[in-house]
Amino acid sequence: MYSFKNDYSEGAHLRILNALIETNLEQDEGYGEDRYSQKAKEFIKDKLGRPDVDIHFISGGTQTNLIAISAFLRPHEAAIAVSSGHILGHETGAIEATGHKILSVEGRDGKLSPTDIQEVLDGHPDEHMVKPKLVYISNSTEIGSIYSKQELQSLHDFCQKNQLILYMDGARLGSALCSEENDLQLSDLPALLDAFYIGGTKNGALLGEALVISTKSLKEDFRYHIKQKGALLAKGRLMGIQFLELFRDDLFFDLAIHANKTAGMLREELKILNIELLTHSPTNQVFPILPNSVITVLQNKFSFHIWEKVDSDTSGIRLVTSWATKEEEVVSFIEELRSLLT
Amino acid sequence: MYSFKNDYSEGAHLRILNALIETNLEQDEGYGEDRYSQKAKEFIKDKLGRPDVDIHFISGGTQTNLIAISAFLRPHEAAIAVSSGHILGHETGAIEATGHKILSVEGRDGKLSPTDIQEVLDGHPDEHMVKPKLVYISNSTEIGSIYSKQELQSLHDFCQKNQLILYMDGARLGSALCSEENDLQLSDLPALLDAFYIGGTKNGALLGEALVISTKSLKEDFRYHIKQKGALLAKGRLMGIQFLELFRDDLFFDLAIHANKTAGMLREELKILNIELLTHSPTNQVFPILPNSVITVLQNKFSFHIWEKVDSDTSGIRLVTSWATKEEEVVSFIEELRSLLT
Amino acid sequence: MYSFKNDYSEGAHLRILNALIETNLEQDEGYGEDRYSQKAKEFIKDKLGRPDVDIHFISGGTQTNLIAISAFLRPHEAAIAVSSGHILGHETGAIEATGHKILSVEGRDGKLSPTDIQEVLDGHPDEHMVKPKLVYISNSTEIGSIYSKQELQSLHDFCQKNQLILYMDGARLGSALCSEENDLQLSDLPALLDAFYIGGTKNGALLGEALVISTKSLKEDFRYHIKQKGALLAKGRLMGIQFLELFRDDLFFDLAIHANKTAGMLREELKILNIELLTHSPTNQVFPILPNSVITVLQNKFSFHIWEKVDSDTSGIRLVTSWATKEEEVVSFIEELRSLLT
Amino acid sequence: MYSFKNDYSEGAHLRILNALIETNLEQDEGYGEDRYSQKAKEFIKDKLGRPDVDIHFISGGTQTNLIAISAFLRPHEAAIAVSSGHILGHETGAIEATGHKILSVEGRDGKLSPTDIQEVLDGHPDEHMVKPKLVYISNSTEIGSIYSKQELQSLHDFCQKNQLILYMDGARLGSALCSEENDLQLSDLPALLDAFYIGGTKNGALLGEALVISTKSLKEDFRYHIKQKGALLAKGRLMGIQFLELFRDDLFFDLAIHANKTAGMLREELKILNIELLTHSPTNQVFPILPNSVITVLQNKFSFHIWEKVDSDTSGIRLVTSWATKEEEVVSFIEELRSLLT
Repeated sequence: MYSFKNDYSEGAHLRILNALIETNLEQDEGYGEDRYSQKAKEFIKDKLGRPDVDIHFISGGTQTNLIAISAFLRPHEAAIAVSSGHILGHETGAIEATGHKILSVEGRDGKLSPTDIQEVLDGHPDEHMVKPKLVYISNSTEIGSIYSKQELQSLHDFCQKNQLILYMDGARLGSALCSEENDLQLSDLPALLDAFYIGGTKNGALLGEALVISTKSLKEDFRYHIKQKGALLAKGRLMGIQFLELFRDDLFFDLAIHANKTAGMLREELKILNIELLTHSPTNQVFPILPNSVITVLQNKFSFHIWEKVDSDTSGIRLVTSWATKEEEVVSFIEELRSLLT
Repeated sequence: MYSFKNDYSEGAHLRILNALIETNLEQDEGYGEDRYSQKAKEFIKDKLGRPDVDIHFISGGTQTNLIAISAFLRPHEAAIAVSSGHILGHETGAIEATGHKILSVEGRDGKLSPTDIQEVLDGHPDEHMVKPKLVYISNSTEIGSIYSKQELQSLHDFCQKNQLILYMDGARLGSALCSEENDLQLSDLPALLDAFYIGGTKNGALLGEALVISTKSLKEDFRYHIKQKGALLAKGRLMGIQFLELFRDDLFFDLAIHANKTAGMLREELKILNIELLTHSPTNQVFPILPNSVITVLQNKFSFHIWEKVDSDTSGIRLVTSWATKEEEVVSFIEELRSLLT
Repeated sequence: MYSFKNDYSEGAHLRILNALIETNLEQDEGYGEDRYSQKAKEFIKDKLGRPDVDIHFISGGTQTNLIAISAFLRPHEAAIAVSSGHILGHETGAIEATGHKILSVEGRDGKLSPTDIQEVLDGHPDEHMVKPKLVYISNSTEIGSIYSKQELQSLHDFCQKNQLILYMDGARLGSALCSEENDLQLSDLPALLDAFYIGGTKNGALLGEALVISTKSLKEDFRYHIKQKGALLAKGRLMGIQFLELFRDDLFFDLAIHANKTAGMLREELKILNIELLTHSPTNQVFPILPNSVITVLQNKFSFHIWEKVDSDTSGIRLVTSWATKEEEVVSFIEELRSLLT
Repeated sequence: MYSFKNDYSEGAHLRILNALIETNLEQDEGYGEDRYSQKAKEFIKDKLGRPDVDIHFISGGTQTNLIAISAFLRPHEAAIAVSSGHILGHETGAIEATGHKILSVEGRDGKLSPTDIQEVLDGHPDEHMVKPKLVYISNSTEIGSIYSKQELQSLHDFCQKNQLILYMDGARLGSALCSEENDLQLSDLPALLDAFYIGGTKNGALLGEALVISTKSLKEDFRYHIKQKGALLAKGRLMGIQFLELFRDDLFFDLAIHANKTAGMLREELKILNIELLTHSPTNQVFPILPNSVITVLQNKFSFHIWEKVDSDTSGIRLVTSWATKEEEVVSFIEELRSLLT
């Protein structure tokens, strides 16, 4: 059974494993103060065009979100997120467990706009309510959509004007930046965001996200927060070596391009089959709406998530591709589907 | 410069890296529900002789301590630890950050006894003070000492009688169990402890600790706590594969034996040189007391921690050996030391 | 300017102040262990017909909610509340600050039903999400509605079946129980709820709520939680004396009856004036919809909250009556309103 | 049985109760925004000579400590306190429950010095440990001693130099300032401390402490923290009216003078009886060392705490006087004691 369930079903890109082997017996400092981590940070700063940002490697997305948000906010301050936002429904209350409320807004296409945020601000005028302070967005979003440069610019401007922190969850940032519809560059991000992370786990690493903090006031003492939340790995080199490999050339982007390409293959074929999609996703997630009977048969050969019920006969499913997706399996999925529909 | 600074200066045992490569492109479930993790748990349960325990793989020691302790305690309950305990001074207030006080007691040789705990209980009679509920011990301890079976049995009995949870930090459990002075077996532990962890990070893994919960009431919903604290790795297989390799035969113990052996070499030679030790450590840490002038010269060729000032002329240093320590470097350290002393 | 803004604009019923004076110089135990508090608890237990419940006096509603909810829940567990619930939007994230998410549901008339809760349970199947565990309701609700005995019974049955804790915020319980439409008695509550509080602050006391815990497993060590949250008043007698006065006869109910009576006067007159109400409230809150021009003039003589915009010309306002509301001011409000409308 | 157990055994000074009655039926704003609270703050600012400080009324000492400390600190920062400090052992882990460690130091006479704090700083050099940030002191201390102006000045200077927040628990500040040995004035405090509170509960009020924040950066959004912790009383006027009465003339000081006077009577007579004291306390607590047999008989007529065992035959007891202590009861205590000793 082949899996389109997510983008973390396999191990890591082989270059990464080889790098681990090559460096294996060299002794180095613990807790992320090793040479590989330092070098990896320099490569990323280079690509960002911003030597002044701070970069921290953290093992996963929920971990990164909870450390960053709890470090950035004072106790009475809250985050704002779109209702499909990962921190709202899929992190077991990790943010609330650090003491902070998340204010949910409907949004559109999985994205937030200044109008959405203004409504939250209007509804929170005084000390009987939390103080909205941080805007959480994802790119690509949980439903595969992406932010345009213009959209991000207006969010940035709005947040600046209202003294809000703009934070981006980049679990699938690679796929977003490599989307054909994308007009953002990695180097645009530090100026548009107070902080964001570059996802490694879902783009070819064994584990690891690179948190980038561009706003000076948010940088202070950040390693204390990582350690306090249990996330300062003794062998931090494990993440340094991986990000070094991903960013010493363009491997990070090459892997995302492959994920997008295979998702694109799926989309094109689905279009030919006249299958409607739940959302407009130009990234590595595809959400076709299929008859339940077809879904049941497909599940014998492929694994994927049933995303939501559409009506009594049909449901939207989620197909995720990755750096490791085999093109022949995409072909074989489409063939199976075609045979079921005709 | 060769490092005796800690037991996490290198990567992982080569068998572990090879296992990662062999399994790399197989697809499997995320979040620790993969076949490798399941298999690894079975091997460990076998060695524990207890199929009924629950096992969870967590990325590091501080992470494991904070998840376990905050999951086990109610808000008003506190942990008790010896003053040198890792959670007290070396985890950036990780336990307190989850809302729990740690009550410090002096102890002896880095260890706690029923008498120590009874004093804490006597001093906390009512609701104006926290309620002591969990006893935290380390084995081997932060200063290299180990608990005998008899000592652990009396702690167990005392805790049972007083409805206290007995929890053991096993960051260096391998070294403890393989010490020549040890009379405990891995399979003794589930009956003596409510929960404990088997440390991988400091014994040959890239990262990972295996938390073992033997008391039924502490097992419920535990995965929620791991996820909420950001520690449920998407590619949980990374830890499963490592523990599978460590426990499918006796690799875990073989690595600890090597660490202890090289520490033993150090201890023997130091004895010949008439050098006093700060603590009695039969495990992979050695704490010789040396003239400051000698220490300064040694630091040109070797790295290690200066543990504490003894008097104005001498200090205790900490030498740590590991699965990766080269015997020729131990020899060369001793030769250097001998030449400095004579 | 007369205020219909809330039910805590005045001090306390005079009998309460007199009781404070009469007992003033008697020495007694601190921290709620005084004779007055003990006696007050006995009177309340008598009226509840349940000598086995535990009762704790706590200074205010938010304080009570946060202590109870954080004491009842384990870290990964969440509360469920209707979107207008006080804990969701009007307590500055007090519940989240103790680490717990609140799951919001739409509900109906400010109330929750088993169907609402079932939907939440269905949407939270595993450890990637919080575990819904406590159902928070208010009676009377934030918009003045009340639960019938039948409604409470089905919530109770549903919660029992699903191992959920049912908790009621009774800030305005007096008004609810004394409503003409009410069919619940105070003595029904311990069997229907795991815990609830009887509000003093909004029904004639200077401060104080009586938290009643009827489910045994929730009682243990509760005073630790009160103390830890800073709510164990040194002179706990201050609350004991007040509740003693409220419950040694029927003062508590008499005060609520007065509040309801004056609200009823408002409702009747508004009906005569053909003024529509925002919500059906048979308690001490009335929400008439008025032209904005009328509201502006009314504000010259009366203070009240503008609750919500209805359309561009009209808004709903909130009028609150209390134990202290003067009937002549109700009359004078209606006269003013009538003159403005004609 | 007469009680010397504490300074909160009675209600409130009669002038306070009368003020509550006089203002009882006036309507006013809720949540501390009433005229009485405003006026009380003005009176206190006048006595402080500092119109720019912020003042907040909070119901009790633990509540005030936990709100202030959690509002002032970031998650990784810790408080420093002397081992007898109230927050360390007598507040049920209230500070830790907000996520912050308290670092305990031995101190001297219940007081901290710059040397003590420097040692803590030296022991906390990096992110593997908490960052010491706030110095907690009490005046008078838990064992009755007081800080001289010189001592407070050097703490202030040290804290400024090391970017530490200096916070004073003033539960018994009245007694400290009115001690014969005191050389501090209320108006000295804002310049010497970043924040402190003026205790009402133990000096004649029913409840209430006045938190004074003099450092600008600590003032922002403070009411959010009070509300979030459940301490923004709906009828905040209750505290405003009391502090208005205490500070519209010198009632606050007069009450403390009476407490000190009666404690002084005890001390003088104990000296005549050649009874040694546990601590040097020039305030309203006296700690005589008495034979256990004498203590047992005294307990038939008087209640007090046995503070600590001195040797097998003698113990130190704690006698506390207050604004309400009757001089004839002091006389009668001494007579009883004298008769027992001769």
